[in-house]
Amino acid sequence: MTDLTIRRATGDDLPAIVAMLADDPLGATRESPDDLTPYRTAFARIDADPHQHLVVAERAGRTIGTLQLTVVPGLSRKGSTRTIIEAVRIHADERGTGLGTDLIQWAVGRSRELDAELVQLTSDVTRTDAHRFYERLGFVPSHVGFKLTL
Amino acid sequence: MTDLTIRRATGDDLPAIVAMLADDPLGATRESPDDLTPYRTAFARIDADPHQHLVVAERAGRTIGTLQLTVVPGLSRKGSTRTIIEAVRIHADERGTGLGTDLIQWAVGRSRELDAELVQLTSDVTRTDAHRFYERLGFVPSHVGFKLTL
Repeated sequence: MTDLTIRRATGDDLPAIVAMLADDPLGATRESPDDLTPYRTAFARIDADPHQHLVVAERAGRTIGTLQLTVVPGLSRKGSTRTIIEAVRIHADERGTGLGTDLIQWAVGRSRELDAELVQLTSDVTRTDAHRFYERLGFVPSHVGFKLTL
Repeated sequence: MTDLTIRRATGDDLPAIVAMLADDPLGATRESPDDLTPYRTAFARIDADPHQHLVVAERAGRTIGTLQLTVVPGLSRKGSTRTIIEAVRIHADERGTGLGTDLIQWAVGRSRELDAELVQLTSDVTRTDAHRFYERLGFVPSHVGFKLTL
């Protein structure tokens, strides 16, 4: 198996990233992979913000995973910086290969480099496999995640 | 009762904000209100990031509440921008006065102005009163919030 590369996403990665966002039980109902226009606008916002780290995982020239890491400075916990992991997706052909672990470990390592003291993420209550996965990686399900759609 | 003002926090607000962070069952164990040095460093990071909105609520010259709103652009949900509410604190003398509602409604309104389509927050599983409060304001407890301390 060739080596895995995790690198900053570019505009050229958008079709592959959006396809992964859509190929998901929850994502299927809320993405529009046939029209990349809104994603291009959003990508420009992400790319212009130095506190956003949108990455893709690549192996043998194929884009097989993605996640977004956001750096959030804060006052609580003695002025700790935290990072937030969002939009973790693994290509359907690559699930169960350990790629999810590689991606999350990359995010945790990058968070340390960025002097974060806490990494956090939320996972839909229906994604019970994901919950076991995050707990195996040391994450603690200590919080309830609330959302309000505007 | 004089009018409530919700405004951007300045360095001069740090003693009052940190006192509120510390005057809390969870915060008491992890804050150091007697040494503001780490908070001043963190405040400079927050203040320099245009996607952070750290505010205080003020009434009759007293600082009585605080929260931090973070704007996170993203690709998922057709390129939606979301905001994250963190570090919500109400002065002990002001709990039960509706100030929490005012602060969260301010954050929701500001999120709309910033073209966000989703507001999210996490709350420690032990804060059951807070959970009921957020549900009354329309937030849905659809996610599990995971944290990893580095």
